[in-house]
Amino acid sequence: MQDIIITNGSLILPDSVIYNGAVHIGGGKIIHIGTERDAYFDKYLKTGFSEVHRLGENPYAAQEKIQQNIRQGDALIFNAAGSYVSPALVELHIHGCGGYDIEDPAPEDPEETIIEKIASYLSQRGVGYFLPTVVYDKSVLSSLTFRIKAYKPSARILGIYMEGPFISKEKRGGIHEGNICRYDPNILEEIYNLSKGYLKMMTMAPEIPGAKDILSRIVKYKIVPAFGHSNAEYSEIAKLENVAVLNITHLYNGMSGVSHKKPGLAHWALLNDSLYTELNCDGTHVHSAAMELTFRLRPHNRIVLISDATPAAGLPPGDDSVTMRGKRLIVKKSGVYEKESGVLVGSRLLVNDSIYRIHKEFGIPIWEAVKMASANPLRLLGVNSSGLLKEGMDADISVFDKKFNNCHLQLFHGEIMHPF
Amino acid sequence: MQDIIITNGSLILPDSVIYNGAVHIGGGKIIHIGTERDAYFDKYLKTGFSEVHRLGENPYAAQEKIQQNIRQGDALIFNAAGSYVSPALVELHIHGCGGYDIEDPAPEDPEETIIEKIASYLSQRGVGYFLPTVVYDKSVLSSLTFRIKAYKPSARILGIYMEGPFISKEKRGGIHEGNICRYDPNILEEIYNLSKGYLKMMTMAPEIPGAKDILSRIVKYKIVPAFGHSNAEYSEIAKLENVAVLNITHLYNGMSGVSHKKPGLAHWALLNDSLYTELNCDGTHVHSAAMELTFRLRPHNRIVLISDATPAAGLPPGDDSVTMRGKRLIVKKSGVYEKESGVLVGSRLLVNDSIYRIHKEFGIPIWEAVKMASANPLRLLGVNSSGLLKEGMDADISVFDKKFNNCHLQLFHGEIMHPF
Repeated sequence: MQDIIITNGSLILPDSVIYNGAVHIGGGKIIHIGTERDAYFDKYLKTGFSEVHRLGENPYAAQEKIQQNIRQGDALIFNAAGSYVSPALVELHIHGCGGYDIEDPAPEDPEETIIEKIASYLSQRGVGYFLPTVVYDKSVLSSLTFRIKAYKPSARILGIYMEGPFISKEKRGGIHEGNICRYDPNILEEIYNLSKGYLKMMTMAPEIPGAKDILSRIVKYKIVPAFGHSNAEYSEIAKLENVAVLNITHLYNGMSGVSHKKPGLAHWALLNDSLYTELNCDGTHVHSAAMELTFRLRPHNRIVLISDATPAAGLPPGDDSVTMRGKRLIVKKSGVYEKESGVLVGSRLLVNDSIYRIHKEFGIPIWEAVKMASANPLRLLGVNSSGLLKEGMDADISVFDKKFNNCHLQLFHGEIMHPF
Repeated sequence: MQDIIITNGSLILPDSVIYNGAVHIGGGKIIHIGTERDAYFDKYLKTGFSEVHRLGENPYAAQEKIQQNIRQGDALIFNAAGSYVSPALVELHIHGCGGYDIEDPAPEDPEETIIEKIASYLSQRGVGYFLPTVVYDKSVLSSLTFRIKAYKPSARILGIYMEGPFISKEKRGGIHEGNICRYDPNILEEIYNLSKGYLKMMTMAPEIPGAKDILSRIVKYKIVPAFGHSNAEYSEIAKLENVAVLNITHLYNGMSGVSHKKPGLAHWALLNDSLYTELNCDGTHVHSAAMELTFRLRPHNRIVLISDATPAAGLPPGDDSVTMRGKRLIVKKSGVYEKESGVLVGSRLLVNDSIYRIHKEFGIPIWEAVKMASANPLRLLGVNSSGLLKEGMDADISVFDKKFNNCHLQLFHGEIMHPF
């Protein structure tokens, strides 16, 4: 594997940004971080060691030269031209994108499975890790497990995220009734067995009969519990014992809310600092005023930006070419709806779209915004070797323009996933 | 006027409590604050200057001796026996108490008007200042203005607080439709004229047609605008120009709420640090979880504890002896309801009851809790000479037991209002 040096970057460090920064990557790790003035970089940058490839300007023109460097075994030097050098992003909660549906039961193109297509699409958006997110459907689960096992760079997939089946019918949102069921330990065991250890997170409603039992079992299965799709009352939730790590599935959406008479799950989540809350910042799922409330109330290291992206993510408004769970979708503004029922089923945007927005509109420091989509979700999932631009961490790095619109370079464990 | 020294008190200073504290009061002002060890107090406390009257233990037994001291012109020395020495409290929003209805149109006992009875009742609860609170009714307003003018220690009444008439019918709560009307500048002018300068605060709904005009007129009339009884949407409120001082009438109650889809007035208020929000902490009007949300989000110097007390305040649960606006009331737990309709119309408790509760249950420092019922409402009303235990301030002081249940001594401008 080639060493890589990124120069002239705006490095998004854990608690600051440094300009004219440089990063040395080798052996899949971040070896050194500094500025170009550091003597450390002299031998690479001041002695004509290698050609410098300027990022963000027709990358394909540079491709041939880079291939040549790789063959020669030189370090690859990329000039970030002032762009942000960021930890790779995480799509914690994603149902599909680029027209690809994670739950699509159609037979696969044997050359490239849907998982591979999605992974490749996400690389172009600066995403390093993702959790394919599904509802409860045994055949989908089986085929997804099979695909993940077959997918080579499987480290990028941190596991499967399942919404349900033990959730509230009143708060099912875009989940069909057929994907919901009453709690039965045998069903839970069957899900666990079908998932072959890949099930990483499960959404449950804390008010349903058997909630305590579900919690204790899924924690034993090493599945992270998430509360969501729930109509729980505040006092019902408070009665459950504390669990070590707890996530809230798309805070506000599909749950009982904030109230001075009958506070619900969202209200409870806002007041409990130890848990993680997903937050959809696409502007359609959660009103700006509720986003502001969240940023003011909750510890920023416990907020996880999610896209809840549908297969239509990345497609333009008005597009209705895509289906999900057998229903035709339509893209409107930043949301994706079932065309027939009008139910909001997810977002058109991906997490990179939210980072600049919350920085610009809500005054969240850019490094905090980035951590909400990198270090925070990884910490929630128990991954501590990535998510921060720090020496010794895995070299999972994405280079973005200053609005986080375009990803110029995506590295996973030091390997170039995009664009070359 | 006699000088007064309070010894052995737990003094609630602006940002701390000092124990074994002593306060010297003279000429209606706080002259000196310290501990009993201060040399300042030696001449009073160490030379047998005067008898010491122990507070909180059958005060009437001491009455004769105190009368004697007063005749002799000695300083009165009270031993607070460890009790809290607090700034006098403010009842910003109160419709009545002790069986007395501020809006009662019945002919008065010429010896003691209802205003005097209420003032006297409130002294026993440690209250220095209050705003008689009414709905829009011309005859009530006229007679109330007359009574206030006739009331001698009128400094204690900071003016009239009127809820309406330009409010939302959907969010009228306990206010009858007959007390609400569409905005008409002539009605506003008539109210102003009838109030003879005593109208201090007026609740209006920011979404009603003419809201901007109401705002600019009442500010010109030196009336503090309060938003409340409103179904406003977030964006409608944000459109109004900023006003210098703005209060929110009983935050959460009678207004559009906190929401991720359709945020309303309560949501807007939570995110705007410069305004004041009333908060009813009786446990019936606002759920504990919403109180906690408020304490976490809002600056503590912008929260005002209110009782929204009805004539039934101070009466025991189950009591239905009292009427308000012609309707029979019933006391249940801490709330007061219209017996027939079941509508919540106010609280059974007074502000002193809330102070200990928010200190104990929500971890609010006792001095912060006290300021929410003293310095904060006074600052909101432009009174800066009282509300804090500080040298040079008006000697408006109440001595309370450690649970703020019983008031042992109430001074207003250095005069004993209770218990002697």
